[in-house]
Amino acid sequence: MLSALDLARRIEAGDLSASGVINLCADTIAARETEIGAFVTYDVEKARSCAAPSGSRALRGLPVGIKDIFDTADMPTQYGSPIYAGCRPAWDASAVSLVRRAGGVVLGKTVTTEFAYLQPPKTRNPHNLAHTPGGSSSGSAAAIAAGMLPLALGSQTGGSVIRPAAYCGVTGFKPSYKLIPTVGMKCFSWSLDTVGIFAAGVADAALAASAITGRDLRVDRTTPAPPRIALLRTHIWDEASAPMQNAVEHAVRMAEKAGAQISELTMPPALVQAFDAHPTIQDYEAFRALAFEFDNHRERLGLLLRTLLEDAAGITADAYDVARRNARRARHALGDLKSEFDVILTPSAPGAAPDPSSTGKAIFNRLWTLMGTPCVNVPGLFDASGLPLGVQVVGRFGRDRDTLEAALFVENALSRFAA
Amino acid sequence: MLSALDLARRIEAGDLSASGVINLCADTIAARETEIGAFVTYDVEKARSCAAPSGSRALRGLPVGIKDIFDTADMPTQYGSPIYAGCRPAWDASAVSLVRRAGGVVLGKTVTTEFAYLQPPKTRNPHNLAHTPGGSSSGSAAAIAAGMLPLALGSQTGGSVIRPAAYCGVTGFKPSYKLIPTVGMKCFSWSLDTVGIFAAGVADAALAASAITGRDLRVDRTTPAPPRIALLRTHIWDEASAPMQNAVEHAVRMAEKAGAQISELTMPPALVQAFDAHPTIQDYEAFRALAFEFDNHRERLGLLLRTLLEDAAGITADAYDVARRNARRARHALGDLKSEFDVILTPSAPGAAPDPSSTGKAIFNRLWTLMGTPCVNVPGLFDASGLPLGVQVVGRFGRDRDTLEAALFVENALSRFAA
Repeated sequence: MLSALDLARRIEAGDLSASGVINLCADTIAARETEIGAFVTYDVEKARSCAAPSGSRALRGLPVGIKDIFDTADMPTQYGSPIYAGCRPAWDASAVSLVRRAGGVVLGKTVTTEFAYLQPPKTRNPHNLAHTPGGSSSGSAAAIAAGMLPLALGSQTGGSVIRPAAYCGVTGFKPSYKLIPTVGMKCFSWSLDTVGIFAAGVADAALAASAITGRDLRVDRTTPAPPRIALLRTHIWDEASAPMQNAVEHAVRMAEKAGAQISELTMPPALVQAFDAHPTIQDYEAFRALAFEFDNHRERLGLLLRTLLEDAAGITADAYDVARRNARRARHALGDLKSEFDVILTPSAPGAAPDPSSTGKAIFNRLWTLMGTPCVNVPGLFDASGLPLGVQVVGRFGRDRDTLEAALFVENALSRFAA
Repeated sequence: MLSALDLARRIEAGDLSASGVINLCADTIAARETEIGAFVTYDVEKARSCAAPSGSRALRGLPVGIKDIFDTADMPTQYGSPIYAGCRPAWDASAVSLVRRAGGVVLGKTVTTEFAYLQPPKTRNPHNLAHTPGGSSSGSAAAIAAGMLPLALGSQTGGSVIRPAAYCGVTGFKPSYKLIPTVGMKCFSWSLDTVGIFAAGVADAALAASAITGRDLRVDRTTPAPPRIALLRTHIWDEASAPMQNAVEHAVRMAEKAGAQISELTMPPALVQAFDAHPTIQDYEAFRALAFEFDNHRERLGLLLRTLLEDAAGITADAYDVARRNARRARHALGDLKSEFDVILTPSAPGAAPDPSSTGKAIFNRLWTLMGTPCVNVPGLFDASGLPLGVQVVGRFGRDRDTLEAALFVENALSRFAA
């Protein structure tokens, strides 16, 4: 994989030109894109012409992949749907403009599932082509894993950043709700949609998050302090595979060995209720956010999404309001626990990547999307067949830097005590 | 003015055809649009062909104007900016789709100020062409006031629904934050942007809000109960003109005479702080929401907006976070007062419509936009020169129906005890 931090340092030191970085990506794309299918479109020549060699912006010259759910004025945008084949918006999404402001170079649009929902896309898992890369940010995760890009944008409404990051063995960072603007990103659920970042390691993702938000989120300049970690098996621990359960428990042991303070958290009842509230909120909003497509192009929607929207038509405003109240209660309940730990450690997914007939399940992610808390998939563990297993670090709302530091601590612990 | 409720009843009773309603609008447009300039574009023939004569949807056959800040697939969308001249998105904004789902017929796009900010547009006030209709939903308010439309959509980030409604003497309803989706509406500030509705009277606006949201918000079927009203002069009472101060105090007396319970509220310090927080939040977000336009088309931005964005570049994340914290505190402070009154009564604007060199000030609106509370401009009062003066009913977050009922109560009281 390509470390964004490493590339940035080499560019800064003059050891690598912006064009050289693009060549690194282009070579890997040439070698692997045919079998992986991470891109909807990419343009190496254009990227070369955009890669400003001067200046000191944090992402200067770094190629970035943009999930094709974000509008781009200079590249097609089709949201994974035939309804928008060849569509070219007249603007860039805010997150894309912020990447460019920071010196990043948009190399291509990465594959998304249809409107970032569940229909499996063409993309394959770089670790094993017989497996899904996960979804909905399938192309962004796969492109990082294959070393085709150092950075990519994605989005998460259920588990669309953390899950593909886990399946592909890369870092996925879902910041606090609204830390990165969703303006110009195709909406599925306005209460849940969150822009996320893919990178090789935690410190790479933190570099990008810092550059995009203009906040001090970098974690590469100091050694992270040992965090207080709460192991949370959740009420659906049985749905995690044995290798995943082992991976989480192993990560906890390694973190403890590295000096972290470990406790165990039982799933508070308010969080169980919020877990159930997520689909109500998501689907109620999707029926409205995708009203144009449902009302005018229903026959061109995939079966999974069409069925979801047909069912969503029956969700009442009362049911939606109850779900939102339950979510608010859960946020307070979670806030009340803040003195007990810095971060939660929990599975990123039910297990390793399943076969490509689905993109996997978001059951270990959707609660945290609804809570709006920062989440990081920490890679570094694998099952017996060599497929990645991701563990998830969940921080407190608005404490994105603390969360990234804790994730870096876990990442370091895993690599330091690797078998 | 055209009452949406009255038209809906006549259509229902078979006394008026959908085509007849469109003719009513078309005749007034033909007579007055040249001098008022409420529309960017309109299409009477198309509207005629869309006006479904059958079915029982709540807005069946009612013509609706759409502020040109909402995307429409079948009409140009240019956000009041030359950057987007001739732009035609591939989709409808959610609010537009919801209007159509409810049976409403999009008759045209109404004039917005540039990106819904402050640059004065071409539109004139139907009550006196030498005055502004207010902004930024200038065309929507003017079209209702002139009787060119029974319903129109607008949006408010500072005071862009309530202020033009007040200046034009129509009902403006800014619902609770996010009650109507902003998906497909050009974003200025994602924490503030709120979709609003313009109509002749309060019950007309409630009909539309009910139809668009699928919530029970209609207030035309029962007599509203006398509300507990808190008169709030605010800390900027001196900035209200004498006629406006008199209008608010008159409205309070009339409401009391009609049976309302009146108290007086002194501006809580947390609300004064939140008043100051509004521009920080708005401008910080606008610098990101309009990043594409600022970075790529700066020379085509109006001077007011360009200056705002240049200054906004200097707002730090810390300042933004402090402003958001202050807003949250104020929401709690406001919530703590909920046992004392049902609604607040306060000015809708500093006075009557000023001359067209500006669109007026949002100082009596921006706090409530930030609080996310439902607000209604109640028309019915005038200054000595015959220009409308609006009084504002502010309800509790999520209590949109109660707020509309209280506004209807005030509206009835003003007409019942009119001098």
